[in-house]
Amino acid sequence: MRKLPFDKAKLDEITANYPTPYHIYDEKGIRANAARMCKAFAWNDGWREFFAVKAAPNPHLMKILAEYGFGADCSSMAELILAEKTGLSGEKIMFTSNDTPREEFRKAWELKAVINLDDITHWPFLLETVKPAAGDWEGRIMCCRYNPGPLKGGNAIIGKPEEAKYGMTREQLLECYAQMKAAGVERFGLHTMVASNELDPEYIIDTARMLFALAAEIKEKTGVELEFVNIGGGIGIPYRPDQKAMNLEYVGRGIEKAYAELVAGKGLKPLKLYMECGRCITGPYGYLVAKVLHMKKTYRNYAGLDACMSNLMRPALYGAYHEIVVPGKEEAKETEVYDVTGSLCENNDKFAIQRELPVLERGDYAVICDAGAHGHAMGFQYNAKLRSAELLLREDGTVKQIRRAETLDDYFATLDLENI
Amino acid sequence: MRKLPFDKAKLDEITANYPTPYHIYDEKGIRANAARMCKAFAWNDGWREFFAVKAAPNPHLMKILAEYGFGADCSSMAELILAEKTGLSGEKIMFTSNDTPREEFRKAWELKAVINLDDITHWPFLLETVKPAAGDWEGRIMCCRYNPGPLKGGNAIIGKPEEAKYGMTREQLLECYAQMKAAGVERFGLHTMVASNELDPEYIIDTARMLFALAAEIKEKTGVELEFVNIGGGIGIPYRPDQKAMNLEYVGRGIEKAYAELVAGKGLKPLKLYMECGRCITGPYGYLVAKVLHMKKTYRNYAGLDACMSNLMRPALYGAYHEIVVPGKEEAKETEVYDVTGSLCENNDKFAIQRELPVLERGDYAVICDAGAHGHAMGFQYNAKLRSAELLLREDGTVKQIRRAETLDDYFATLDLENI
Repeated sequence: MRKLPFDKAKLDEITANYPTPYHIYDEKGIRANAARMCKAFAWNDGWREFFAVKAAPNPHLMKILAEYGFGADCSSMAELILAEKTGLSGEKIMFTSNDTPREEFRKAWELKAVINLDDITHWPFLLETVKPAAGDWEGRIMCCRYNPGPLKGGNAIIGKPEEAKYGMTREQLLECYAQMKAAGVERFGLHTMVASNELDPEYIIDTARMLFALAAEIKEKTGVELEFVNIGGGIGIPYRPDQKAMNLEYVGRGIEKAYAELVAGKGLKPLKLYMECGRCITGPYGYLVAKVLHMKKTYRNYAGLDACMSNLMRPALYGAYHEIVVPGKEEAKETEVYDVTGSLCENNDKFAIQRELPVLERGDYAVICDAGAHGHAMGFQYNAKLRSAELLLREDGTVKQIRRAETLDDYFATLDLENI
Repeated sequence: MRKLPFDKAKLDEITANYPTPYHIYDEKGIRANAARMCKAFAWNDGWREFFAVKAAPNPHLMKILAEYGFGADCSSMAELILAEKTGLSGEKIMFTSNDTPREEFRKAWELKAVINLDDITHWPFLLETVKPAAGDWEGRIMCCRYNPGPLKGGNAIIGKPEEAKYGMTREQLLECYAQMKAAGVERFGLHTMVASNELDPEYIIDTARMLFALAAEIKEKTGVELEFVNIGGGIGIPYRPDQKAMNLEYVGRGIEKAYAELVAGKGLKPLKLYMECGRCITGPYGYLVAKVLHMKKTYRNYAGLDACMSNLMRPALYGAYHEIVVPGKEEAKETEVYDVTGSLCENNDKFAIQRELPVLERGDYAVICDAGAHGHAMGFQYNAKLRSAELLLREDGTVKQIRRAETLDDYFATLDLENI
């Protein structure tokens, strides 16, 4: 059974102030992981991780990450504002959007964020939107998103690149750099994102190789010398007990080797390596803490929690596996088989199906692991369910609420209930 | 191409006041359908449809339906409050919940709603929660939810009943009625829900037959004479052009025949027939109106809308098909093939994949049909996207906003952005 950064006594103490369900993030774990990541890529001068804000759009978490030099990968107006409120700006923000509304380009421009163009038509659209004056390009860096199409095999979650809506073809990419250069842009980057929740380190290393080689081709064909390549995110986490975490040091060394061969070895100027991970940054360090509300026995055994899929959609949405730990029963044998459910009026509202667990009783804690990314963030209010609070378990053991729970007033905010 | 209750000129007029994207509901269509449904079941004295609030939790829509005698099928605190605000109470509300929190039982009790017990353990839990005094049962009606298990074949969406978390076994059901009767409960109903988005009328008729037969068995074994059976909802709608709407009159006649045989013919007291449809009540009469924001051509042709899966999750979630109509191009040939996308940073944010449509241009309307149920209601705020407004197209052609669009302030409501 997974080891947690808190025990039952600690949960009792926390729950006295914050009723279940809640998400709780382990600051110590987040910091250790961030430091480890920095070290694994320290060989690259200018390496930067841009935290994928959508994974856990909480400025308190973003601020911790900013201490490690992490920036923000944003793809919507509210995410840009979250980055701004965290104190990030300029090249600490990458704005990687698709099908982008004008006002979001405007905001990204105002923040001097690195704007990553998803499509060649976004270049005239951007010009039309922000109307840059002569001299406006000074210091600014522009980026293009590459979609390798059939040249890169797909990954299980993100699908085949040639069926993905993102990015430009190779020809469009070269054309877009040429157009930007002609318009006076002086600094450039290159981006791709071809994986999600990938556990094979070779896939990540190969992506870097692909972009390093492309950087040389871009230089050769357009004269544009890139300052950075952003290999995207997609580093997975071991949700299942039989899965292994990706070895970040191995990835770091693999990319370093590729860099020596394809960048330094080809006489390219130094390239900064950028990444935009989300899942592996906060995922394993967030927990959804719930209590057992009802035990039920019909054709199966059910343990009903006081949380539901509004708090964590992944099991219902993807059939995703999340480990469940029962604090206070860590030593108990897993003699029972339960469907662990929420109260949403959808049969797929199950955190686990036919899961071996210790004997459960009403009032037991059920801690759902790996809920720190794409957890709270993906919650909906279907069936008029409210989303829970987010807490931070600090390094010193104290707890800080970093997002309050929703209330009925929040749910009704867009209705005028007095004038029906 | 589907016929819409508005044309391009009308949309231009509406959009001048309410920017796209928005959901718009066709009052005339909702009313005609509700009236038709009442007529199809008029043979049953006391027939009632309880609108499944989760399908479209908007009190303005619920109020229109209340004019046809429709009640509310609620399964959460906020849904109970919506019913209350709509002016419904007592036996116009069925509270059908699972894994139910105490405060929701308390609220349902206070509203004198019909409480539908999901599990035999909920009976003592309810007693412990509301602590009924002698005489409190007078006039109140209690219901049990039946899960037929392997006795009833499953339906594609809801799955096999024996794997569903809902309801009681036959033995538990009989035991629960006996316990309730012994405790002084005088009035009883029976409920099941074994389908979702079903288009085969026989499935619905069979469900009624099953409950009619069970009513006789309950009388025989416990002495409890039911006042109603609620056959649940689950009547589907034809999302795809090759599908046919369920013939409500056929269903009405089929159940009438079963009633004559199994209720009247067996000497049972008159039974009220209850239903709790959602999808077929508002689904076909709601439209998500968006505009084309970007046209993109890479390995495929893309039309990017100003709406995204936050406004309608079904295509991304279930791969569900929704017809797309382009007002102003109704007569144009469908010569192109597009992936119609939203701007969410998820590759599954596509309203249609490889769909034949007329030539699209930036600024064209794209009206996504059958978005009136499980549409706005299921929207999430992932990727920091905001949910859109809901409008009502009244019978007289005027438009009323029945839910405002979310703002950035709504999105940030649970954060204290000034204290990061």
